[in-house]
Amino acid sequence: MRFAFPLMAIGLEVAMIALFGIFVQYETDQNLSQKSNSTSVDLDTSLDLYPFFRDVHVMIFAGFGFLMTFLKKYGFSSVGINFLIAALGLQWGTITQGILHSHGEKFHIGIKNMINADFSTATVLISFGAVLGKTSPVQMLIMTILEIAAFAGNEYLVVEIFSASDIGASMTIHAFGAYFGLAVAGVLYRSGLRKGHPKEESVYHSDLFAMIGTLFLWIFWPSFNSAIAEPGDKQHRAIMNTYFSLAACVVTAYACSSLLEHQGKLNIVHIQNATLAGGVAMGTCADMNIPPYFSLILGSLAGIVSVFGFKFLTPFFTTKLRIHDTCGVHNLHGLPGVIGGLASIVAIAMEIPITSTTKQAAALGSSIIIAIVGGLITGLILKIPIWGQPSDQNCYEDSVYWEVPKRII
Amino acid sequence: MRFAFPLMAIGLEVAMIALFGIFVQYETDQNLSQKSNSTSVDLDTSLDLYPFFRDVHVMIFAGFGFLMTFLKKYGFSSVGINFLIAALGLQWGTITQGILHSHGEKFHIGIKNMINADFSTATVLISFGAVLGKTSPVQMLIMTILEIAAFAGNEYLVVEIFSASDIGASMTIHAFGAYFGLAVAGVLYRSGLRKGHPKEESVYHSDLFAMIGTLFLWIFWPSFNSAIAEPGDKQHRAIMNTYFSLAACVVTAYACSSLLEHQGKLNIVHIQNATLAGGVAMGTCADMNIPPYFSLILGSLAGIVSVFGFKFLTPFFTTKLRIHDTCGVHNLHGLPGVIGGLASIVAIAMEIPITSTTKQAAALGSSIIIAIVGGLITGLILKIPIWGQPSDQNCYEDSVYWEVPKRII
Amino acid sequence: MRFAFPLMAIGLEVAMIALFGIFVQYETDQNLSQKSNSTSVDLDTSLDLYPFFRDVHVMIFAGFGFLMTFLKKYGFSSVGINFLIAALGLQWGTITQGILHSHGEKFHIGIKNMINADFSTATVLISFGAVLGKTSPVQMLIMTILEIAAFAGNEYLVVEIFSASDIGASMTIHAFGAYFGLAVAGVLYRSGLRKGHPKEESVYHSDLFAMIGTLFLWIFWPSFNSAIAEPGDKQHRAIMNTYFSLAACVVTAYACSSLLEHQGKLNIVHIQNATLAGGVAMGTCADMNIPPYFSLILGSLAGIVSVFGFKFLTPFFTTKLRIHDTCGVHNLHGLPGVIGGLASIVAIAMEIPITSTTKQAAALGSSIIIAIVGGLITGLILKIPIWGQPSDQNCYEDSVYWEVPKRII
Repeated sequence: MRFAFPLMAIGLEVAMIALFGIFVQYETDQNLSQKSNSTSVDLDTSLDLYPFFRDVHVMIFAGFGFLMTFLKKYGFSSVGINFLIAALGLQWGTITQGILHSHGEKFHIGIKNMINADFSTATVLISFGAVLGKTSPVQMLIMTILEIAAFAGNEYLVVEIFSASDIGASMTIHAFGAYFGLAVAGVLYRSGLRKGHPKEESVYHSDLFAMIGTLFLWIFWPSFNSAIAEPGDKQHRAIMNTYFSLAACVVTAYACSSLLEHQGKLNIVHIQNATLAGGVAMGTCADMNIPPYFSLILGSLAGIVSVFGFKFLTPFFTTKLRIHDTCGVHNLHGLPGVIGGLASIVAIAMEIPITSTTKQAAALGSSIIIAIVGGLITGLILKIPIWGQPSDQNCYEDSVYWEVPKRII
Repeated sequence: MRFAFPLMAIGLEVAMIALFGIFVQYETDQNLSQKSNSTSVDLDTSLDLYPFFRDVHVMIFAGFGFLMTFLKKYGFSSVGINFLIAALGLQWGTITQGILHSHGEKFHIGIKNMINADFSTATVLISFGAVLGKTSPVQMLIMTILEIAAFAGNEYLVVEIFSASDIGASMTIHAFGAYFGLAVAGVLYRSGLRKGHPKEESVYHSDLFAMIGTLFLWIFWPSFNSAIAEPGDKQHRAIMNTYFSLAACVVTAYACSSLLEHQGKLNIVHIQNATLAGGVAMGTCADMNIPPYFSLILGSLAGIVSVFGFKFLTPFFTTKLRIHDTCGVHNLHGLPGVIGGLASIVAIAMEIPITSTTKQAAALGSSIIIAIVGGLITGLILKIPIWGQPSDQNCYEDSVYWEVPKRII
Repeated sequence: MRFAFPLMAIGLEVAMIALFGIFVQYETDQNLSQKSNSTSVDLDTSLDLYPFFRDVHVMIFAGFGFLMTFLKKYGFSSVGINFLIAALGLQWGTITQGILHSHGEKFHIGIKNMINADFSTATVLISFGAVLGKTSPVQMLIMTILEIAAFAGNEYLVVEIFSASDIGASMTIHAFGAYFGLAVAGVLYRSGLRKGHPKEESVYHSDLFAMIGTLFLWIFWPSFNSAIAEPGDKQHRAIMNTYFSLAACVVTAYACSSLLEHQGKLNIVHIQNATLAGGVAMGTCADMNIPPYFSLILGSLAGIVSVFGFKFLTPFFTTKLRIHDTCGVHNLHGLPGVIGGLASIVAIAMEIPITSTTKQAAALGSSIIIAIVGGLITGLILKIPIWGQPSDQNCYEDSVYWEVPKRII
């Protein structure tokens, strides 16, 4: 299968060109003013979103990309396959979400669609973290196509059918991506790696590269949670709630890391990951009319749960459930995503009149169920031998796919 | 004192939650319109500040964080403790500045408060540079609390009592942070390290990581100096003056580095640090009505002074004054901050009618005096043995607090 | 020539201060309203450009800087000389462009001039890539001055005389910078390095540093191509076209890399460079009224051409044409820039009524011809021995100019 990857990649790009040719047109002042009788959208509104888009864009490509560079021999693949998934996924996400919301008609796109397209790729990048180092590029192309389709379906269900509220996507992106990835990782479980792998390790500098990812994710997370919020009060609150939730999360994550580690040391894995849990957990409630101290509590809680997850749940998953989660996405995206969904139910129960508790519960349930079912099916498809899955001994080694080039000719 | 750090961190976060519960509410369109009779602030104005906030946020977390990663074995601690200080500090800065300006009443916060909260953490991060590698995380938590309280007091004095002008905070942040840190470093001086320490060294890649910090600080500095400037002409000038001052500073810093170093080589320390002095020195005058060539002159001067400081003053401080300044913050923040304050006095004397020379001199004086007094007191408190200060031989070694994790379970 | 570098740098900075004193004033509300009878520019419009400016600024200083850090012993010089060139170049670019467009009168500058100044430095940074590791800092100072003057002349010709359209500067920046650099590299060709150089190699981490550059260039490229576009429909399209072109380019570049490399591996050089060709190729057409699938096709094509260029053209240039292009700028900027110019001719021929095919062809021709002539002249000037060009054996080694500092005093 020497040509599986180039042929599939070229084939997918040709398909994207064809689908764009059939379905996609740009928003213009003219076509927006035609439908402006019904909505208040115009081109200036679209351009106002551009700064939010750029922040999300940094998170997807530099944030997620570098966050996964911690493995000593898999840095090129981490940042490189992340790049490929996101670049393909944003095209496919534009198509799937556009077609669903337009019910199969031609549709016009603007900056908001670019944000949503980037969002859709985040689910695959989260799932990629669960299987990092154990899959081939071809498998990742397939997962990108399947997972984004499932994501778009679930997102349509949550927003259009349930009318639930999930502005920062704790449920529809973070929990969804994590449980999808865990399901795939469960199907692809390798008993040969039960005792670990010599290359599943970091070196000092690879962990510093990962901090680039952590910091750019952390810094721009307020934009992630507020990007598609209603302008005005809601967007303002979404920014501030996320800012404070993340700050509190850092403090409690450090405290718990020192509490649990040998001699009170801090663990760089917790610093890289658990500090972000406050952003995930704040997602669903970000734009709700909650008091500032609530954000601090929610962020604090997320930091604590995430560190305990890394310390106790990840080993349990690997040894007992036979699910090996390379980056610990369950602790960073899974649990905090569920906490975010539950927090919204609590907030609504305490009379924040945004939507009903039932709708939120339905959204949380569908996000987890569709993710797990979708992940299991995807895992089975990825298991077909022709996709070039690396052998046990080639795991966590990007020289299989990359050659450090001789620049001398 | 195995549990000193986790208990203190959790305790501080609980205190922040309590203080936020008592004092802090978000700005909303409603509460803003109630007071809009007196002021012209509204929510849109608050959101207009968001792009400036994000740039400052990048500087605080990625800029300062990576700038200090040059030490070969202290990268995790540099970027990690920076992260902790800033995350805790921004909560505490929100509280202290809010309470002072509201005279102890409940207060409403918006994006501008987020910018000021980030600003307040910058002082501690600058001081952290002076004691880098020689203190424990617990000591840094204490310094964060004490220094931000002192900063908020001085800032109140400068702005509300003296009515001085310091838009980019050359005096209130940069000079203040540097002299506070030098005072702490003086109190904590270790004669055992007089002849240096084998780990107080960089390796090639650690110095490249530090360049990430340098560049993101340099690139976004125009936003730092203009973030809270009056919209319109003043903000516009603050951006442009800083842009040109920084550019000139790079050229003269390189020239002086080559002039002073062996065989005309350039020194990476100067490139990492002295190139930023133009941003510091431009702070106070940034929004004043000065001609463009004045910015170039001020930036050129700052670059020259900073390089000479690294070459001659830092060794003098260490050997004669018994003040060991790990990152050379005196050359990057101290001297250029004082130059910034003096430049504003010159500019006002040359009939830029913004405020009086006396007020500016008072602001410069109070920033330095409060910093030194506050730093001495803080240093004495930090010297109490229970805070776990590292022994001489454990300095510049982050494995004391960090464990490179075994990711294999 | 121990003092050649510091004296030249100081001399140039003094000249910049003098020129700014004579020619440059800041835009203010007052001076803008005076001329607002004729144009619609005002200060708010200038400040609206600030977010675009910052993105371009990140690309110039962090993007280009880190992209070139791949060489194992030349990282400090890559990012450091890039910093110097850009800081000097933006001052000189402000002057040259301002004087040309004001026909030698005093002129007022705003954020748009800052964007154009940053743009002008991009040409030199591209050319720097062609001669990376083989020149001295003094030579780079000279090239900065000469190339920006040539760039400003060509840009004036293209915009004011030909009235051609090149909003994202495929021709005037990318093709110009590449062919200028190739001409210089041709003149400076060293037959002693025909068989390569042991230091012209990367190590694992140096290639990861280069990915920082790649990603920040890629992420912010939509801002580069839209920064000075007409607000509204055109700016909106420039953003979206570039976004999709870049995404498609990544997919096809990966496909071709795997197709051409041993055992279907991916080549990190292609990932670092060819993925950006879609942004270059989209430059000229970015704001034109073309359908979205056209951007995907153009980006796909650019990715393919760029990878083939790295694989086949670069060796051919080195061995047959005696032009050694260190970073392969011909494949990233040269060819895709020409494709961008040709695409605009095709688009106009297909009745996109923006300008005439003749004007576009003239712009493409003048960009290439002036670049080559200017590069040849510059190369001959740089060959004068007193500029301290490194000997063959000192190439690709920044310890000549940098000393890893002993931080212990």
